[in-house]
Amino acid sequence: MSSTRTASTFSPPVMEARRWIEGVTFPPERPLINVSQAAPVDPPPAPLREAMARIVMEDASAHLYGPVLGLPELRAAVAARWSRDYRGAVAPGQVAITLGCNQAYCAAIAALCGEGTEVILPSPWYFNHRMWNDMSGAATVPLETGPDLLPDPERAAALINPATRAIVLVSPNNPGGVEYPAALLAAFRDLCRARGLALILDETYRDFDSREGPAHDLFTDPDWSEVLVQLYSFSKSYRLTGHRIGAVTASHARIAQMERFLDTVTICPTSLGQKAALWGMENLDDWLAGEREEILSRRRAMEASFERLAARGWHLMGCGAYFGWIGHPFEEPSDALARRLVREAGVLLLPGTMFTPEGAEAGKRQLRIAFANVDAAGIAGLEERLAALPG
Amino acid sequence: MSSTRTASTFSPPVMEARRWIEGVTFPPERPLINVSQAAPVDPPPAPLREAMARIVMEDASAHLYGPVLGLPELRAAVAARWSRDYRGAVAPGQVAITLGCNQAYCAAIAALCGEGTEVILPSPWYFNHRMWNDMSGAATVPLETGPDLLPDPERAAALINPATRAIVLVSPNNPGGVEYPAALLAAFRDLCRARGLALILDETYRDFDSREGPAHDLFTDPDWSEVLVQLYSFSKSYRLTGHRIGAVTASHARIAQMERFLDTVTICPTSLGQKAALWGMENLDDWLAGEREEILSRRRAMEASFERLAARGWHLMGCGAYFGWIGHPFEEPSDALARRLVREAGVLLLPGTMFTPEGAEAGKRQLRIAFANVDAAGIAGLEERLAALPG
Repeated sequence: MSSTRTASTFSPPVMEARRWIEGVTFPPERPLINVSQAAPVDPPPAPLREAMARIVMEDASAHLYGPVLGLPELRAAVAARWSRDYRGAVAPGQVAITLGCNQAYCAAIAALCGEGTEVILPSPWYFNHRMWNDMSGAATVPLETGPDLLPDPERAAALINPATRAIVLVSPNNPGGVEYPAALLAAFRDLCRARGLALILDETYRDFDSREGPAHDLFTDPDWSEVLVQLYSFSKSYRLTGHRIGAVTASHARIAQMERFLDTVTICPTSLGQKAALWGMENLDDWLAGEREEILSRRRAMEASFERLAARGWHLMGCGAYFGWIGHPFEEPSDALARRLVREAGVLLLPGTMFTPEGAEAGKRQLRIAFANVDAAGIAGLEERLAALPG
Repeated sequence: MSSTRTASTFSPPVMEARRWIEGVTFPPERPLINVSQAAPVDPPPAPLREAMARIVMEDASAHLYGPVLGLPELRAAVAARWSRDYRGAVAPGQVAITLGCNQAYCAAIAALCGEGTEVILPSPWYFNHRMWNDMSGAATVPLETGPDLLPDPERAAALINPATRAIVLVSPNNPGGVEYPAALLAAFRDLCRARGLALILDETYRDFDSREGPAHDLFTDPDWSEVLVQLYSFSKSYRLTGHRIGAVTASHARIAQMERFLDTVTICPTSLGQKAALWGMENLDDWLAGEREEILSRRRAMEASFERLAARGWHLMGCGAYFGWIGHPFEEPSDALARRLVREAGVLLLPGTMFTPEGAEAGKRQLRIAFANVDAAGIAGLEERLAALPG
């Protein structure tokens, strides 16, 4: 008999990091630069807020239960958008709306895994993926990545055994920032198909991918749904984090399994949030394109800063979407360094140890910078503080 | 190695029931009476909608991530309300806000149970409790209730073994409608304490309890948090079902465990929903008292109708909160009868088989009527149709 589900995992890293700044005073001339978590800090654009206020007043259904799998019009809009963007065929019934992308991942794992199964996760990973695997009784099998932060399908193949159920990829990557090449994703798709696994592809940050055109051709495969489970989030794109709206796209049979999980855990996604997401899809393409341009300009500022910091031993290993993944030049492990950065530099970021297997050497040498909230001036300030940090 | 988490349970009953009405025509002179699910059908009162529209426009934080365990001001408001209503001491840190009461239950079980554990659940039960136990790898041990629908602590004691982790009670009960006497709840509390179990008490329908004053004195025990995990929902009280706001009240240690689950599954409850719930607590006491009066008058109409129906063999076993639990007079099992009621009487309700262990005789003889959405005229119409149903 096991202990409890929650005892099988660790405490949320973001909360732990927040405790590091408790009791620390940041002087006005050097305020805290918080690059620990990337999330919008401004509300949705005014036209969307105005649309939501109208819906709140006039549309009773925005306050009441909706279907477990989401509003049909939003499911249809996602299916149409994916079909267009990825040049494939996605049906509305192959899309479920979830309470954020984390819940989409949880539903997918619940439909794919049981006690004693295994999930292959490239390291560094998104810690909530690891936490849900733990709580699901599915062992996380780390797939170490090298200096380019890209997972290797051949190394992955060697980790597969009869207990393996899925390989999880995140592109653009959290925490690594790298955009996985289409050919790499296709290679993982082929591997998963050959070995009877699901490929879970988390595309939370797809709207901030630097590449033009489709990021992959997985949906052009007429049989994509045999293999692929794709995850998405509306949180970042339309600044709707507080409304918790995500989506999962998969086969009809897997969506039917996920319905059991979604009904039991939360009954339905928030109705107003879904209507806001739909309004965003219908009206905010141009606005979102501007948001993407801003993120890409911040990415360029990060790259320029770390070119200069390279002389001091800092190394930008990956940079894209909301994140930079950094090799640091110090002897101390990243979790000690992260605490010192709070005290000595007024910078809060997350150490690599929070994204890697216990004791992994790579995690000790690396840090994640969530740069999306910091404008060009802020990135310059960050550069200055890192350059000045005593060894 | 097990199958998947979702394969370990069944499909959501409410969706199955909805499929029964597909393709059935209901003539205008006899429209469908849907008493399958109890949920508000009207939006929140206008002042609350107006407050929400203002918040949408003016309060950026309503759209953004908040703390995993909920907004401090809402946690404090719930703690103060429970302390006042139950004449006990509940601290804000002992309250977590969840995405609805189902998620509160899921978080509680995740913090209490692991693979191979057991949970005692009085039967008939709320099916989502059973479904989450299944998906958690915690076996549901049925505690059969008798004609009064009240669970017996002595029978429960006989079901406890080293794998048992919790006893779950729902009062006012879904599906049974009965209000558990305070002494009965205290007896279960004593049993749980003596045997080292948690008592999970789901009070989703507390605001519609017919009794004046506190429904129980569990919180007056200074050591309540050793044993009690209490669940609540804002969905029904303020007609906020679509915003998914619930709460769980438990020890600081258990709340810290639940934080892992809540962070991983949904990151935080919806910010706007929480602000709406708080506005409701601060401004809608009188309005809610009126809602309660209306529900209680519908309950009296149900009781009067079933007094008349008793001559035809119908039996109202329990009635309260949103639900009546009915013994029916027919030979056929309740799941067949429920389908026949759709076709021959234009009534959609859920059969007892959806709330009881597989094959249980009691479930076949019983039905749930969710009467809260049906006004006095509707209840009279329901009576007429049941009375006219051929045997």
